[in-house]
Amino acid sequence: MKKFSISKSRRLRSTPYTSRIEKQGVSSYTIYNHMLLPAGFGSSLEESYYHLKEHVQIWDVAAERQVEITGKDSAKLVQLMTCRDLSKSKDGRCYYSPIIDDKGGLINDPIVLRHNEEKWWLSIADSDVILFAKGLAIGYNFEVNIFEPCVNIMAVQGPKSFALMEKIFGKDITELKFFGFNYFDFRGTKHLISQSGWSKQGGYEIYVEHINAGLDLYDHFFHVGKEFNIKLGCPHPVERIESGLLSYGNDFDINDNPFECGFEKYVNLDSDIKFLGKEKLKKIKAEGVNKKLMGVTIESKEIELFSLSVSIDLFDENSNKLGELRSAVYSPHFGKVIGIAMIYKSFWKVLQKFTIEIDGISYNGNICELPFI
Amino acid sequence: MKKFSISKSRRLRSTPYTSRIEKQGVSSYTIYNHMLLPAGFGSSLEESYYHLKEHVQIWDVAAERQVEITGKDSAKLVQLMTCRDLSKSKDGRCYYSPIIDDKGGLINDPIVLRHNEEKWWLSIADSDVILFAKGLAIGYNFEVNIFEPCVNIMAVQGPKSFALMEKIFGKDITELKFFGFNYFDFRGTKHLISQSGWSKQGGYEIYVEHINAGLDLYDHFFHVGKEFNIKLGCPHPVERIESGLLSYGNDFDINDNPFECGFEKYVNLDSDIKFLGKEKLKKIKAEGVNKKLMGVTIESKEIELFSLSVSIDLFDENSNKLGELRSAVYSPHFGKVIGIAMIYKSFWKVLQKFTIEIDGISYNGNICELPFI
Repeated sequence: MKKFSISKSRRLRSTPYTSRIEKQGVSSYTIYNHMLLPAGFGSSLEESYYHLKEHVQIWDVAAERQVEITGKDSAKLVQLMTCRDLSKSKDGRCYYSPIIDDKGGLINDPIVLRHNEEKWWLSIADSDVILFAKGLAIGYNFEVNIFEPCVNIMAVQGPKSFALMEKIFGKDITELKFFGFNYFDFRGTKHLISQSGWSKQGGYEIYVEHINAGLDLYDHFFHVGKEFNIKLGCPHPVERIESGLLSYGNDFDINDNPFECGFEKYVNLDSDIKFLGKEKLKKIKAEGVNKKLMGVTIESKEIELFSLSVSIDLFDENSNKLGELRSAVYSPHFGKVIGIAMIYKSFWKVLQKFTIEIDGISYNGNICELPFI
Repeated sequence: MKKFSISKSRRLRSTPYTSRIEKQGVSSYTIYNHMLLPAGFGSSLEESYYHLKEHVQIWDVAAERQVEITGKDSAKLVQLMTCRDLSKSKDGRCYYSPIIDDKGGLINDPIVLRHNEEKWWLSIADSDVILFAKGLAIGYNFEVNIFEPCVNIMAVQGPKSFALMEKIFGKDITELKFFGFNYFDFRGTKHLISQSGWSKQGGYEIYVEHINAGLDLYDHFFHVGKEFNIKLGCPHPVERIESGLLSYGNDFDINDNPFECGFEKYVNLDSDIKFLGKEKLKKIKAEGVNKKLMGVTIESKEIELFSLSVSIDLFDENSNKLGELRSAVYSPHFGKVIGIAMIYKSFWKVLQKFTIEIDGISYNGNICELPFI
């Protein structure tokens, strides 16, 4: 596969960690929220895959930007944007909350952090949620303040992250529950830390608000992390697909609704909360959806097949289109390519066979359930 | 300068032209509106610079996405978003129209195409204007339809573009005025074409709505363009800075207002049109601004200095910060680095000297007016 270089400019913002990461050997980037997000290092995908599942990695995920919404009407605005019922949400907790428009189309799928009733962070996927929030707030004349705070997340992911974090932050951090967050001290600076992250290998996200203190912590990780075999990493295309962690823009977008993406449990239609697209979603639920995201396996050992830059159609043996592949990657665990595809209703059968053509070569595959592992 | 590869995925959408352009030798990309935008070819920056100024180039600028706004309240919504008075705008004309929020901060600087009173396209720079428009429309309960149509712009730029376009589209196209648009036929398909483009070398933008017909036209350009020395190109970092064409996200962003960016002539505060941030802009105008965009020259022949990924501070001889550099590139014409910088008021003197440190090396420079040429 031919490689193309990225043309850097201020518009593709670097992060506070970029200069360190470039010295440490980052080799490729993706762009996420107008910012550099590391996507590969010198090591092979397979090597970093096993490392993530066995040890601990530090990820520069500053590109997971925050939209801060504060003020009297902030809870009302945040609720208006998501189909998840946040009326019983608690301070110090994270909530995975799909954001939809008035037609039920998905705009983003952030983690919502509730600091308190009048201060919220939306830790966003790759779209300018801040502009949607601003538009709504202006139109509804809400009393809110909306901005992007200086927050640059550093993630600590992998099974050894628990022991590493305890070594640095002490016993207190072991009391932090999954999707809980709190402030923890390192050398006199309090960092907001949540037990979360974009892998299923366990770990934390550190919402660095003080750049120098964050860089000090970053360096400390690599200093004390040696005994845990710490390495630099990044969100892993194989691990995330195996784990069924969906990616906005890759697996789904504004043309898809929450029911088509398996987000039923985050759609609360029965309470009296007010959110955009509620009536539309009730109608969709009553009628049922005609397509949904499912897993696929493809018989191929082409380890670089995952580099899709468009959807690719899937066909049955009679050349009927049965769906489209949106993400795919070679899985060392399964010894074949696995992927996430939008499949039409009449083909929702596990083990449904299909063919797919990539670069003029035809491959055979099967549909399966998500997650893979 | 170390090169980093781009990690492709569906989230960084390819364009209808991508497969052709990759065969023709594109070597680097930037990402713009979640889409691949070619940023370099095998040839040197200098070679493509002189070629653009003397001949004609085809650019894949599909990443200049359109936001289509139609319906009864569409004119009201478009006007609400821009400080430029569009009340006397005409069908078939393009309008450069800064979009601002209620605080006067810049959100985008699209070309607005008025199809008619109830159909508008916003040909956008790199931010999700569609989300701002949707939020406003929902909040104000406007009767509008807002979506991203299937439009993939191909630009024809350079002094020979006029003769080339006349050869293909006939005499009619020579009657198209600057920033006018109309439909022109090629082999039975009507294409919307404007006389515009992101260079000052003259040319057209073809708003391709029918992909196959567009690809047919693309191939035809290279077939009949030989006599004009046609080549593949892309928005050129040297030409655009010399010409003072600003780039959203690079030179200015939501923390800057139109007066700070030299957009005075697009700010209409005296008529009775209603737009966001109008009172705020009146106040800013009355008080005057404390920073503005200016040109800089830097004594260096480092041709790859332009690859900034953050702003870099500028200092006077007493170590007072006098502004920040936001874009920079080596200009073969001037034999030095030229750039665009945000300069504080007390230093708005042409020939004001400064020093700047890049990668540990200190350079001397001077402030100047924009554009350079």
